[in-house]
Amino acid sequence: MSRSLNIAVIPGDGIGQEVVAQGLKVLSAALPQDVKLETTEYDLGAQRWHRTGETLPDAELEALKGHDAILLGAIGDPSVPSGVLERGLLLKLRFAFDHYGNLRPSKLFPNTATPLAGSPEIDFVVVREGTEGPYTGNGGSLRTGTPAEVATEVSLNTAYGVERVVRDAYERADSRPRKKLTLVHKNNVLVYAGHLWKNVFDAVGKEYPEVTTDYLHVDAATIFFVTQPERFDVIVTDNLFGDILTDLAAAVTGGIGLAASGNINPTGAFPSMFEPVHGSAPDIAGTGKADPTATILSVALLLRHLGFDAEAVRIEEAVSADLAGRDGAFRTTEEIGDALAVRVAG
Amino acid sequence: MSRSLNIAVIPGDGIGQEVVAQGLKVLSAALPQDVKLETTEYDLGAQRWHRTGETLPDAELEALKGHDAILLGAIGDPSVPSGVLERGLLLKLRFAFDHYGNLRPSKLFPNTATPLAGSPEIDFVVVREGTEGPYTGNGGSLRTGTPAEVATEVSLNTAYGVERVVRDAYERADSRPRKKLTLVHKNNVLVYAGHLWKNVFDAVGKEYPEVTTDYLHVDAATIFFVTQPERFDVIVTDNLFGDILTDLAAAVTGGIGLAASGNINPTGAFPSMFEPVHGSAPDIAGTGKADPTATILSVALLLRHLGFDAEAVRIEEAVSADLAGRDGAFRTTEEIGDALAVRVAG
Ligand SMILES: CC(C)[C@H](C(=O)O)[C@@H](O)C(=O)O
Ligand SMILES: CC(C)[C@H](C(=O)O)[C@@H](O)C(=O)O
Repeated sequence: MSRSLNIAVIPGDGIGQEVVAQGLKVLSAALPQDVKLETTEYDLGAQRWHRTGETLPDAELEALKGHDAILLGAIGDPSVPSGVLERGLLLKLRFAFDHYGNLRPSKLFPNTATPLAGSPEIDFVVVREGTEGPYTGNGGSLRTGTPAEVATEVSLNTAYGVERVVRDAYERADSRPRKKLTLVHKNNVLVYAGHLWKNVFDAVGKEYPEVTTDYLHVDAATIFFVTQPERFDVIVTDNLFGDILTDLAAAVTGGIGLAASGNINPTGAFPSMFEPVHGSAPDIAGTGKADPTATILSVALLLRHLGFDAEAVRIEEAVSADLAGRDGAFRTTEEIGDALAVRVAG
Repeated sequence: MSRSLNIAVIPGDGIGQEVVAQGLKVLSAALPQDVKLETTEYDLGAQRWHRTGETLPDAELEALKGHDAILLGAIGDPSVPSGVLERGLLLKLRFAFDHYGNLRPSKLFPNTATPLAGSPEIDFVVVREGTEGPYTGNGGSLRTGTPAEVATEVSLNTAYGVERVVRDAYERADSRPRKKLTLVHKNNVLVYAGHLWKNVFDAVGKEYPEVTTDYLHVDAATIFFVTQPERFDVIVTDNLFGDILTDLAAAVTGGIGLAASGNINPTGAFPSMFEPVHGSAPDIAGTGKADPTATILSVALLLRHLGFDAEAVRIEEAVSADLAGRDGAFRTTEEIGDALAVRVAG
């Protein structure tokens, strides 16, 4: 009996194409022999928008639903007005597929340059809410472009939405050795949303007596990210705070060239989507300078999400070994991908 | 003819009392002989709230208006529910006195420990909007405490409010040697507020042809804060992003023991308020461990705001010299205050 894995691939813009090619190479190398990999490429992103004005047509959204998971490279180009592809494609996918758990692990690998002095031990994961907060597009502008303009942005938070992501974070914390969960919010100022988050966090916590909990305001959390990152194990936070904190986390763990992420629908009702945290970096597109490691680590998250735990670990160990062996000599995107594929297959 | 300076002092909670005493000592030492310093202490903060249930009564708000400036230590205690003193006192003051320019300089002084490797050159100032954004208390909660709860927070942004703080930031950038201004927002997601900020930023920029401008998303900005902080000169941003970025800025420039801030009403219609960025640190209150330097640097901002430029520079130079001479030996709050007062007077 043979199994098959049916992956939708959205290479996207800039370096997206290049890093996704390496991600797929490593995915092939990692899969057990009896699993057949089927991929379908979707042409979405800046070029498509320029050509047709479309960001994510309904037919393609529908087709994407049929896959086991989605692998995305990067979306975005300076030639497209800010917000068009973000809201029309990236966020549309997260909302349509109810990706409420945005998973972003941060680990300082051996031999990796961190901007922090003393190379602290960093190994935490941020579980960012993905479908609420100020990301819902709920806002507006009155008297736009005049000196009397008023613009609003509404952060929407529901007990339904907060509870499920908080529960997911407790589950993850409970399954890790340190069993520690930190809620990050700003409940001294954003009192309505803050109290909802804190109350739900405390209530769900009663079901996880072994998990130690902690609360930090988002401003204070940024301080600990640079002075004491080793204090974190699992962090759960809202959509916007999670966006900010995970870029900072990527920076302190050696840069966004290594930061992976998964937009997860934990119920399995819709395919989850995996992508590097970095953007399309049009300035280095086509030069072979892009590091595909973040995409390859995203492939590991994809495999783990689909139940291929051993294969995910093999990729992570290969990355760890590859990074440990780096000596600063330049390697192209493809060379790094090849080296990792060899390690994973071997 | 003699002049007098009429300062309202709110020592507040925890270490607030201790650091403010040193701030006033250095203020006295810095002032020209012919300026008489008059101070009035206001008993506000956690103890007052426990005693009377009041945070900032109208009579005291009215009385505060009569001063040239306000010096605040720190407000907050774990015994008070989160949000009560923040919204009832700190934010109430910012809104009542229209402190729309929240000024937070970040400078890496010589011989100061930064968590960043390689001690980069850091010397920038964040101009944070202080009266709008998600800080207006505009939100609510429906079916509170039930599984059907919905909580909102509304970020309010007006062309009026954005224009005046952006203009203030251009003025400051224009008067600094590097003349560089960076707008930080998240206009690819918060499109309504983001476009308002960006449009105003570009429009006002036309009046400052010598200022080089730049735009960064807030998530990307946190990366540069740790990888390339030397790229920043003046940053202008909204209330919440400014809150987050300035704590991070404080951390990378040696900690919140050194971070000063001014809540400025640039028109002079109301007194401006100066305070260290750090909180009341109840865990070290009374131990003499609090570093009063952030308060003393806030006094320098106060003096500059009131036109005492030379005196402000003297304090900053004294701090610089004091930090350069630190050898890691413990000095009490008072010893540091004394040492700085001597340098400033000398
Ligand atoms: C591109 C943008 C919409 C996105 C976000 O803000 O979520 C990105 O910054 C991310 O973190 O995935
Ligand atoms: C205490 C709190 C209300 C305040 C803020 O969020 O502005 C503080 O964090 C600050 O930065 O001054």
